[in-house]
Amino acid sequence: MRIALVQHAFSGDTRSMREKSSEAIERLSKEGAEIVVLQELHENRYFCINESTDNFRLADDFDEKLAFWSGVAKRSGVVLVTSLFEKRTAGLYHNTAVVFERDGSVAGKYRKMHIPDDPGFYEKFYFTPGDLGFEPIDTSAGRLGVLVCWDQWFPEAARLMALKGAEILIYPTAIGWFDEDSDEEKQKQLDSWVTIQRSHAVANGVPVVSVNRVGFERDDSGVLDGIRFWGNSFVCGSAGEFLFRASTDEIEQVIEIDMDMIKNQRDIWPFFRDRRVEYYEELQKIYIDRCEEK
Amino acid sequence: MRIALVQHAFSGDTRSMREKSSEAIERLSKEGAEIVVLQELHENRYFCINESTDNFRLADDFDEKLAFWSGVAKRSGVVLVTSLFEKRTAGLYHNTAVVFERDGSVAGKYRKMHIPDDPGFYEKFYFTPGDLGFEPIDTSAGRLGVLVCWDQWFPEAARLMALKGAEILIYPTAIGWFDEDSDEEKQKQLDSWVTIQRSHAVANGVPVVSVNRVGFERDDSGVLDGIRFWGNSFVCGSAGEFLFRASTDEIEQVIEIDMDMIKNQRDIWPFFRDRRVEYYEELQKIYIDRCEEK
Repeated sequence: MRIALVQHAFSGDTRSMREKSSEAIERLSKEGAEIVVLQELHENRYFCINESTDNFRLADDFDEKLAFWSGVAKRSGVVLVTSLFEKRTAGLYHNTAVVFERDGSVAGKYRKMHIPDDPGFYEKFYFTPGDLGFEPIDTSAGRLGVLVCWDQWFPEAARLMALKGAEILIYPTAIGWFDEDSDEEKQKQLDSWVTIQRSHAVANGVPVVSVNRVGFERDDSGVLDGIRFWGNSFVCGSAGEFLFRASTDEIEQVIEIDMDMIKNQRDIWPFFRDRRVEYYEELQKIYIDRCEEK
Repeated sequence: MRIALVQHAFSGDTRSMREKSSEAIERLSKEGAEIVVLQELHENRYFCINESTDNFRLADDFDEKLAFWSGVAKRSGVVLVTSLFEKRTAGLYHNTAVVFERDGSVAGKYRKMHIPDDPGFYEKFYFTPGDLGFEPIDTSAGRLGVLVCWDQWFPEAARLMALKGAEILIYPTAIGWFDEDSDEEKQKQLDSWVTIQRSHAVANGVPVVSVNRVGFERDDSGVLDGIRFWGNSFVCGSAGEFLFRASTDEIEQVIEIDMDMIKNQRDIWPFFRDRRVEYYEELQKIYIDRCEEK
């Protein structure tokens, strides 16, 4: 599987972002990419940095978005993983990854299931949690376990995708630092983020691709200075080993993944053989209070 | 919480191992340890390296084992996490972690739930999978999420302990390399092992302590040369950051953990707030076959 990562900075408006992404996809296709993964909400600045009803206009005309990215996928002849702001009806929006086949048809979509909300990342204001569950998307290049950003912190999401046969986990994401944090704090956060995603590869014996944005984006509301998106997009193999790791610069990179690694890894460390599913029912609880215990 | 790790090599017989461990516990208590964690099956060589009914005698007289380690805990005045070969009745054995209070009473026990079986680690021959579920053990030093070795590869086990209020995850373990593997392969395995356990800290916002054995143990059956246990016991904080990391030498080490880190970390990254439990039911399946899907 030849999969490409596009890690970009926001260039100022949707038109220029579309142009920049499309040109990258075309180049990567010529370099042999079968799948191209774009970062979370790649058409826009990361508007969730503050809460403003004005931003809902960015979700207008989902059909037009689909038509545009369908055309890009078809022209470049790649399976394309996009991340779009979906208006489902007035007052109901999702953070939605749409996967296009190389012929431009929609292979499937995934609506972000776990929605964050913390200072500078006000996603619960904008996005209704997804209602499509954790379903891999079948494409001509493989069965893709597409999840989005905050999902990466939840082992349950990765596991469900793998149990349904996902051959790779793909995380478009938008995560960054606040400049006022210490270097030590920044490194700790980055390291947590890399570790949890690599662990999904280890636990499930599948490769993982994570694509983040870069660059500083100001908070126009003045509450925060802004977010410095930390890039560091990466690909790891089915033992969690790095196959590629980006810096904090923009990158467009094709990575070849030997898909035999899934079977090889799972045969050596057969975790799927040994799960104690009859004891997992309580994973469906938010918390298990002491007073409820036997 | 001041928790101590005892990473030892097998010294030849149970008597000398008991002596070596007891002396370490006494020293660590004097250094201020409130909890001492021993490695998996610390009374014995790692006998699961081959299959022999002779080894079942090592499980004889569980009551005597309990009495011995109770005495050690009481004399040193520490909460003691042991890992013992439990004979429950003839032909029924478990790999059981018993936690003793500082007064020598049994605080609780945990029977290893996920049982491995691969060349050199023939645990399915020796141990029936635990039937006590994933229940933290309350002690005077905190609520301990004690799991054992192979459990470390299963995010479900860590999650259930954390959902039940475990304040720390503790893994007595016995894992090592085959000398014939390449250095690259060895590093990859070690790195996977560290990564998956650190990820349980990240996902659940709790510190993790893992205690492994060291030294080379020969396979007397002649099928394998033997296992070189890789040590590298470690402690990480609730963001997965290293607080301590051992080498491949024997170590006895007290580590202080600031337990405020749990609340601090979970308030910053509140993953427990956002789990989509209504979509987690299928975690109770071994696999989700395509033909069963909606």
